Amino acid sequence: MSEQGLRARVGARVESVFVQRTIMTLIAINAVTLGLETSPEVMAAFGEVLRTIDHFVLTIFVAEIGAKLFAKGLRFFRDPWNVFDFTVVTIALIPASGPLAVLRTLRVLRVLRLVSVMPRLRFVVEALLRAVPGISAIGGLMLLLFYVAAVMATGLFGADYPEWFGSVGASMYSLFQIMTLESWSMGIVRPVMEQYPYAWLFFVPFILIATFTMLNLFIAIIVDTMQTMHEQEMKEEHEVIGEVVHTESESIEGELRAMRQELRALRREISMENRS
Amino acid sequence: MSEQGLRARVGARVESVFVQRTIMTLIAINAVTLGLETSPEVMAAFGEVLRTIDHFVLTIFVAEIGAKLFAKGLRFFRDPWNVFDFTVVTIALIPASGPLAVLRTLRVLRVLRLVSVMPRLRFVVEALLRAVPGISAIGGLMLLLFYVAAVMATGLFGADYPEWFGSVGASMYSLFQIMTLESWSMGIVRPVMEQYPYAWLFFVPFILIATFTMLNLFIAIIVDTMQTMHEQEMKEEHEVIGEVVHTESESIEGELRAMRQELRALRREISMENRS
Amino acid sequence: MSEQGLRARVGARVESVFVQRTIMTLIAINAVTLGLETSPEVMAAFGEVLRTIDHFVLTIFVAEIGAKLFAKGLRFFRDPWNVFDFTVVTIALIPASGPLAVLRTLRVLRVLRLVSVMPRLRFVVEALLRAVPGISAIGGLMLLLFYVAAVMATGLFGADYPEWFGSVGASMYSLFQIMTLESWSMGIVRPVMEQYPYAWLFFVPFILIATFTMLNLFIAIIVDTMQTMHEQEMKEEHEVIGEVVHTESESIEGELRAMRQELRALRREISMENRS
Amino acid sequence: MSEQGLRARVGARVESVFVQRTIMTLIAINAVTLGLETSPEVMAAFGEVLRTIDHFVLTIFVAEIGAKLFAKGLRFFRDPWNVFDFTVVTIALIPASGPLAVLRTLRVLRVLRLVSVMPRLRFVVEALLRAVPGISAIGGLMLLLFYVAAVMATGLFGADYPEWFGSVGASMYSLFQIMTLESWSMGIVRPVMEQYPYAWLFFVPFILIATFTMLNLFIAIIVDTMQTMHEQEMKEEHEVIGEVVHTESESIEGELRAMRQELRALRREISMENRS
Repeated sequence: MSEQGLRARVGARVESVFVQRTIMTLIAINAVTLGLETSPEVMAAFGEVLRTIDHFVLTIFVAEIGAKLFAKGLRFFRDPWNVFDFTVVTIALIPASGPLAVLRTLRVLRVLRLVSVMPRLRFVVEALLRAVPGISAIGGLMLLLFYVAAVMATGLFGADYPEWFGSVGASMYSLFQIMTLESWSMGIVRPVMEQYPYAWLFFVPFILIATFTMLNLFIAIIVDTMQTMHEQEMKEEHEVIGEVVHTESESIEGELRAMRQELRALRREISMENRS
Repeated sequence: MSEQGLRARVGARVESVFVQRTIMTLIAINAVTLGLETSPEVMAAFGEVLRTIDHFVLTIFVAEIGAKLFAKGLRFFRDPWNVFDFTVVTIALIPASGPLAVLRTLRVLRVLRLVSVMPRLRFVVEALLRAVPGISAIGGLMLLLFYVAAVMATGLFGADYPEWFGSVGASMYSLFQIMTLESWSMGIVRPVMEQYPYAWLFFVPFILIATFTMLNLFIAIIVDTMQTMHEQEMKEEHEVIGEVVHTESESIEGELRAMRQELRALRREISMENRS
Repeated sequence: MSEQGLRARVGARVESVFVQRTIMTLIAINAVTLGLETSPEVMAAFGEVLRTIDHFVLTIFVAEIGAKLFAKGLRFFRDPWNVFDFTVVTIALIPASGPLAVLRTLRVLRVLRLVSVMPRLRFVVEALLRAVPGISAIGGLMLLLFYVAAVMATGLFGADYPEWFGSVGASMYSLFQIMTLESWSMGIVRPVMEQYPYAWLFFVPFILIATFTMLNLFIAIIVDTMQTMHEQEMKEEHEVIGEVVHTESESIEGELRAMRQELRALRREISMENRS
Repeated sequence: MSEQGLRARVGARVESVFVQRTIMTLIAINAVTLGLETSPEVMAAFGEVLRTIDHFVLTIFVAEIGAKLFAKGLRFFRDPWNVFDFTVVTIALIPASGPLAVLRTLRVLRVLRLVSVMPRLRFVVEALLRAVPGISAIGGLMLLLFYVAAVMATGLFGADYPEWFGSVGASMYSLFQIMTLESWSMGIVRPVMEQYPYAWLFFVPFILIATFTMLNLFIAIIVDTMQTMHEQEMKEEHEVIGEVVHTESESIEGELRAMRQELRALRREISMENRS
């Protein structure tokens, strides 16, 4: 068998319903074991078993992705979902020790492969991501607003409230908290107003502008979604109305054709009479 | 009288306006008495009376549902509202003692029968429930996201903050709280950042992703409702436009038919003349 | 002059632009003085002046409403805005002393007359109120849900947390707070879970159901507003399309009429020929 | 060269892509340096460099705006974006010392020039501002409501809770906090209810009315945006349908014209025959 043929066969096998269902089941099982691994009691009792399952599942995943890579070559990386699968499996292969110990926690991202394996969840995520470009401009504006407000807050209140506004980074975090309206007044603005009684002149407009902008970001998504929906509807509508108009005008044209035949017959009779 | 006939008569009687109105009134009275029963002072003074009313109302409910069961047989359980009525009445019949003492509190669910008895409320609840399937995919995604984030949070912060992130369950509850934005920063993330200064790298993206997904869930319901509404409107619109086009084309066709008769008359005259 | 004529003249005078503008200015001035009256320092210095202005404005208001009452008789009370004006002015006339001291505070409601005097604000309030009937069913459902949940919470947690769930009223207030998501977890549910570890089984579903229902109430208003807007648009659209179809069919009918005349002329010529 | 010609050339040069790109880059660099200037450590090490960059960028900005002013004269101030640029650059030129030290902080507003320089951000801001007039009436109503509620709260609770409701200004701030639902119950209303057990009769309706009004403000923006979008769609739709109807009726008219020529030919033949 040619290499080409082998690749195609491997590709078809690994994408088959049976293999995909198995992978899905393994991810679900792995989700449970990864959850159980967080419990020290469970680990003390069944640690060996859980780790074995984990290794087994990981081996299957590596084999699956290896097979896909073999079947598709570099085209494999053109599909962003494949890149996602590749990344989350690779994370699990890096030895998570020393400074990389945090990677151990990222292993659970593997469970998100459920999204790439289940078409319905995949569709939802793709729909969510499609909304992103439409809001990137407002998002950029928002970021600029945050940066400017953070520099101002650092300059105004940083010296007296270093915990909240000590640096641009700390200010951005605090302003994010304020925008989510969490303890903005009792926790932050009222204490600040004890030192700076006019601090509300900075924070209240910030809240109004930030929430108004967020709200418009939200509206932008709604309107965008509606517009896409409408365009399809309009197309259908045009077809339906076009058909109605066409049907009616066709019945008129039929009538016209009949009349024209009558006229022609009349003309023939007259010319016959003339000749006679 | 045949059993069949008796069943039909019992069914008609129990569904009659009078019986349904009586049931509605009894539920309303029962709502008040169940509320009063929570007050120890009121119970000390009128406990006997309230309990008697309660038993009386419950007896009527059992009789009503018994009658419906007799009238419809097992078809009774096909209507989900009947299943609901049956369940909440059954709960009240289980002796609420010992480990089942909590059931005593569930007796008040009986008051929700008002929904199944009042058509307008019933309609609203059905409309709410109709929105559920449309969001089940986003809901599933949300759950997956929560689970993955909870496992990660348990691994990252569980050792130092057992109260909030000690187990996957505790983490899911804390992340739910964070998603509702309740004390997320002052109450949880700022304390965590004292130990892990980069904790915001986990929580801020979590908040952004979770609220963005919730927002899209919300938008999904709006768009869905609108679409249903639109489809009806479009149908009506097509009918109206179709009618307008039809009327106009009919008047044209009438004109054409008249002309054709004129032509035919002319032809007849000519052929008569020819023959003459 | 007849009484009828006098009434009409008084009515026209009191509704004139000049009088309405004066009233509007007086309300604005009164708004400022009522605000200033809350400051003890200002009252110590200018109390006499402020009180005089207040009495003067009130006298004008009484005269205005008296004139309207004279002009319209009992029809005056048919307009809800008049009832509103009458009520807020009457409140100011009741001697606010002893147990009615709280009425002194309600005098400021008079400033809300600005809404009834300014057509644009009036329109906005009327638009807001129009949304109310459309949501009354969901509102009723919400109230029922609150009552049932409050009775349950009182039964479950009332004994141990009397401050929050000691009575049905206290529970309803606490559940309202929980629905607004204010300190629901850190302030209420986490403390309750120390005693009842499964309390989240009651509160988390309550939050989900309550916010989902609120969200649908919100969507109901949007969809309702859109529908009203759409119906108008559809009407306009039907008119526009109807006109287009009509114009085109008229030009066809014109053509037809011309043809019929031609036919008639032809017939006349033939019959002339026959006669010749 | 005439002055007119020089002005036009300067105007064209300063609006050229190259100059605008340079300005954009300088704003971005300035954004970074202004951020770094908030850090005392960075200032200690690189203060001289940062201040030099700052002065250099500011000089370029002044030159740019001076050139635009020279090119356009007073028409420069007709474009609100130019007024914005002029203002934020002027702020940086005022010596920020003594009582004006706060202006030092406002220098960072200069970074917002990015918005006026980048067409996409400019478009977004203009879209946001376009939404403002549509909500000004609801905004005015909101303000009136706040003022009235603040005067009432000051009169009712001011004496006992001077920190929150001591003056109309303090009350307005507290009511704004309550409207954002931040610590409204645990932080403010529960403490107030210890003194005034019926305080919820004031605050709960206030929350309901305020959030309902805000929600309608929000809906007003959505509906407005949709309506604008719809009107464009409707226009396109009318054109498309108009075209469909026109095409069909034109084909009918063509048919009719052909028939009429046929009739005319017939008539000519008959009249020729008659004359013969």
